[in-house]
Order: sequence, then structure tokens, then C-alpha cells
Amino acid sequence: MSDSPVVVEVTRGPLVESRHEGIAAVVRADGTVVASWGEIDARILPRSANKPIQAMAFVESGAVEKFGLGNEHIALACASHSGEKRHVETVRAWLKKVGLSEDDLECGTHPPRLQATIESLARANALPTPAFNNCSGKHSGFLTTAVAYGEPTRGYIKYDHPVQRRLRAVMTELCGTNADDFQYGTDGCGIPTLATPLRLLARAMANMAEPSRLSNKHAEAATRIRAAMNAEPFMMAGTGRFCTRINEALPGVAQIKTGAEGVFCGMLPGLGLGIALKMWDGAARAAEVAMASLLGHFGVLPAERREALLHPPVKNVVGLLVGEMRPAKSWLG
Amino acid sequence: MSDSPVVVEVTRGPLVESRHEGIAAVVRADGTVVASWGEIDARILPRSANKPIQAMAFVESGAVEKFGLGNEHIALACASHSGEKRHVETVRAWLKKVGLSEDDLECGTHPPRLQATIESLARANALPTPAFNNCSGKHSGFLTTAVAYGEPTRGYIKYDHPVQRRLRAVMTELCGTNADDFQYGTDGCGIPTLATPLRLLARAMANMAEPSRLSNKHAEAATRIRAAMNAEPFMMAGTGRFCTRINEALPGVAQIKTGAEGVFCGMLPGLGLGIALKMWDGAARAAEVAMASLLGHFGVLPAERREALLHPPVKNVVGLLVGEMRPAKSWLG
Repeated sequence: MSDSPVVVEVTRGPLVESRHEGIAAVVRADGTVVASWGEIDARILPRSANKPIQAMAFVESGAVEKFGLGNEHIALACASHSGEKRHVETVRAWLKKVGLSEDDLECGTHPPRLQATIESLARANALPTPAFNNCSGKHSGFLTTAVAYGEPTRGYIKYDHPVQRRLRAVMTELCGTNADDFQYGTDGCGIPTLATPLRLLARAMANMAEPSRLSNKHAEAATRIRAAMNAEPFMMAGTGRFCTRINEALPGVAQIKTGAEGVFCGMLPGLGLGIALKMWDGAARAAEVAMASLLGHFGVLPAERREALLHPPVKNVVGLLVGEMRPAKSWLG
Repeated sequence: MSDSPVVVEVTRGPLVESRHEGIAAVVRADGTVVASWGEIDARILPRSANKPIQAMAFVESGAVEKFGLGNEHIALACASHSGEKRHVETVRAWLKKVGLSEDDLECGTHPPRLQATIESLARANALPTPAFNNCSGKHSGFLTTAVAYGEPTRGYIKYDHPVQRRLRAVMTELCGTNADDFQYGTDGCGIPTLATPLRLLARAMANMAEPSRLSNKHAEAATRIRAAMNAEPFMMAGTGRFCTRINEALPGVAQIKTGAEGVFCGMLPGLGLGIALKMWDGAARAAEVAMASLLGHFGVLPAERREALLHPPVKNVVGLLVGEMRPAKSWLG
């Protein structure tokens, strides 16, 4: 364990122009801390980085079989997708299968991530709909679970709805601490996001990576979710995205998920490890370099990918290389 | 002077979800430090925050009179604009007046900042051009200065071109240190960005705010630039932008300019003060709250604007208030 923090640097010419600090924990399923940087008992909001955990109750409900769903839907339930054509069309078809529509999504609508999507909507004189929301897959999983259990779907984002109560029950088992005691904020998509000590979030990931301590039902769901994340990496994020590239490149070896405000979670089933990290300033660019650095540190990054992932280039408007990002020497440099 | 840094917090529900640290210096024209937080002798890259300084040689060249230009062009020379219709059309008309066109701009082309602009281009089946670049006004000022002095325009972004040499000469006078000795990186728009101790950048701003120590030519240019920043605030940035709102709200009282990677500069002529700040993680959202906090601290923010500027809301996708940004209690809270 190290008191010194995670540090990611951004250079421009001869200078370190900017730098990002954070905390990271790498933990076994029994709670043993294998490596850590900074105050890992600090509480953070996992945001979307724990969507794989939030997908557990969906898979456990039997809804995948009942409604003829597959890996693409499980991956979407774990995803922060870019709202590209295949994401949106799959969500729409999924909701139809369970007798619902986009109108039942309570996540709201935001502009699509990719300029190309914004442009194609404008050319068609169309507006984005809730299916374009990066969380629409997770919300479809929530709705589908409620339908599978015969519960009212309206209000499924509220703290006391059975969907959210089940989510806390899963968190309780995976973290080893009662998640009903956690404070919470409201996530971008409207659901509660639970203030979780980083160490426990990493332990939850370890229990999904190496689920032998869990009940059969939980263990089977965790294994299935990990497989889906690797099998449908495009559904996890989208064109060019870090989560898509890593989940595609490391089948069976690593499953990772980003969250807003600089959070990242990961599972390393072969090593029986769970990873959680948070950049204090909320910077996604730094969280990606930090996650890549940890994957490299634990020996699961192919050599030919290390440089591009650990030292992504900083380019200017005309494409000139003007700097790079990198893990600081004081951390993992 | 304080060793403790600038700190801006981002809350969500009951938690401080993210936090940003930085440095700030408030200095008089004679170099006296009036207030500071963190290591103000650290070298930073000013990026676009010193565009008002970069506009000095343009105004001093007499090109404004020679080519029938006005406040809107001086403000554009100081601007990081959003590429809205009025910005783009004014740049195009300006270049035509001096016998040039967009093809002479060496800043490159990037997607416009506003989704509405991206959409209107897509609907017209048009692509952005160099005039849409947020730096196109500054580059038009560079080109115009070269034309006024009868210099070749090509290569005006290079370190040894007379345009860039004049820029360093102005920096040298305003900072009180030879800017030819500064290391440099390449800015997003291709020009050298000089590694400047934050304290000296604040001093340069103070010399523009209270130019009595400068030569008549420099002093007149500084006064004219400050007036143009207040007179044409839309040209400084664009719809809804912080620089536009502040430069509009505080005529004669404050002139401010943002830069990439969390830099902000400001002039308070009534108090004879220059401000420079840098958020270490490069976050623009934090640099804005930090600048607003300093304006409040020095008593130049109207009471009715303080709350909105110092505590901007954090909303989720459906518009629900889920948190706020704020200066930390440990800093100016």
C-alpha cells in the first residue's frame, strides 16, 4: 500500500502542462489489498463504472432467456454507449420484445456523443430520443427486470423501487458491507449513485472477477456478464472508445468499465483481482491512462499496445504531435 | 501570500465528488504580489489566456486605422470564439479588407463548439473552414500586422517570424523578464506558447490594467484593447460563454480571458491589478469558478451575480439539480 497518489501527467513541448491526481485500489475477493495508491477508504460515487454490478439482478432474473436476449443486451446493460446506430436500434428492439418502448425510459435525452451522429440527425431533421442516452441499455435492463418480476415499471429509478433495492442487495453481497447504509447522490441518468469506499468497490469487482465466494446464482451471473463484456465490446461504448478497445483486446483476461467524473473499474479474472480508481478532478482522459497503466503493471497488456495506451499523443488542430499523456515517474512511470 | 492552493469543489448530493487544485497570483504593475495561492513561480503555458497581450503588436501597428477596423476586430484578436455566424463572417470580411482570405490562416480547422453550428453546417451540407477555428481572430490579427509592416505572411506562426518576435518583445516589456529566454511548446493553433512563471503573467496583466509604466505606444494599445474586450464581449467568446458574460457585465471594471488547460487571466484597471491562475488538471469548469471567486474576493462582482458565478449548479440529464461547484472553504469559501 502506498500513500502516494495516482499521478497522470500531460506534457506539451518541454513542460508538464497539466497533471491529474487520484486514488486506486487493487483487491482480492476476500478483501486483501494487493496494491493501493492514496486514501482508498475515501468514499466515491461509482457513477457508471459499476454498471456491471447493476446488471447482476437483470441477468439473475431469468429475463435473458425469457425474452430471447443475448450477449449484446447484457453488454448494453453494462454500457455507457455512444448512441450509434447499432446501440439505438438494439435498445429499441429490446424494449419492444418486453412489451415496452422508449417512452418508458426515465433516463432523459442528451445529445449523442459523436459529431457524425449529431450531423446525421440534423440532416434527417430528427431529434435524439431516450434510446440515444448513453445509459439507455442499463435502463432497459432495469425495466426488463421489473417486467420479469411483474413489478410496476414506472419510477424504477427511485431509491425505494424494487429495482434499486435489488441493486443495493447485490452491492451489499459484493462489497461485504450493507449498502443500505451508504449515502447517495443522483446520477446523470436519475438513479441513486451510492457513496462507496473505493476499497469496497474494488472488492466488489474482485468478487465478480473471481466469484467462488458468491452464491451459485450470483456467480453464474457474474461469469455471464464478464463474458458478454468481452463478446460485445462495441456495445460497451462505441467507435474508438477506450472501453471498447480494451474489452475487445483482452477476452477472458480483463473486463473494464468507465464512469463519469474520472472513475474506472476493472476485473482480472485470471489473477482474481478487482480494480477501482478515481481521479479526483474527474478527468476521463487521466482515468484511461491510469487504468491502462494498472493493466500494464499487472502484466495483462500486450506489449504492442503498451506505448499507445500508456503514452497517448497530444496533437494540435492540424494534427501535429505537441505532447503526450503518461503515468508520472512518481507513480508507475 | 499563501502556500495553500486554489481549490474548487464539485458536489453531488451529500458528497464532494471531485475537486480541482491550482495556483493563482494577483499582482501590481511594479511586481508587488497582492495575493497568491500555491507556487506562483511555477512555469505555466498561458495558451489563449494571453491573447490580449498577443493583440498588442496588432493594435500598435496602426493596422486598425489603416484598414478601417474597429472594436469588434480587436476583440476577435483577443478571443477564443465559438465559431458562430457573426464571428465567422467578421473574420472573413476582415481578411478581405487586408487583401487576404481564409486560405492564409495557418491555425487549421476544428469542429465548431456549439451543437447548433454543427447541425446548421450539416443541414447545409457544408464543412467548417479555418474561419471557424476559435483562434481565427488572433491569427487574422497576426496576418494583418504582417501586411501592415510589409512582411511575408506565410509562416507567421513560426518562432522566428517577425510576428512571433514582436510578441516576445511585448511579453518582455510587460513581464519585466526577457521572453526570448523562455522555453516553449506548440499551442493548439500552431504558434509557440511561452513557458511563463505565473507571477510574471499576472504582472503582464497588471501592466495592461494600469499601463502608466509602459511607453506611450504600449499604454495606448493596452487601454484600447481593454475597451474593446468590454465593448464587444460577444466577439470574445460567444453565446452563453463565461468570458462573454463577465466582459459584458463589468465594463471598465474587469477584462478577462480564458485559455486551454485551466488557465485564466484578468485585468482590474480600477484596482491596478493583474490576475493569472492555472488549474493543474486543466479543467475549464474549475478555472471559471476560480476566476469568479477572485473577482468576488476583490469586490468587483455585482452582488446579484455572485451566487450564480461562484456556485454554478450541476444538473443531470433531465435538468434536476444534483449538486454544485464552489470555491472550497480552505480557499475562498
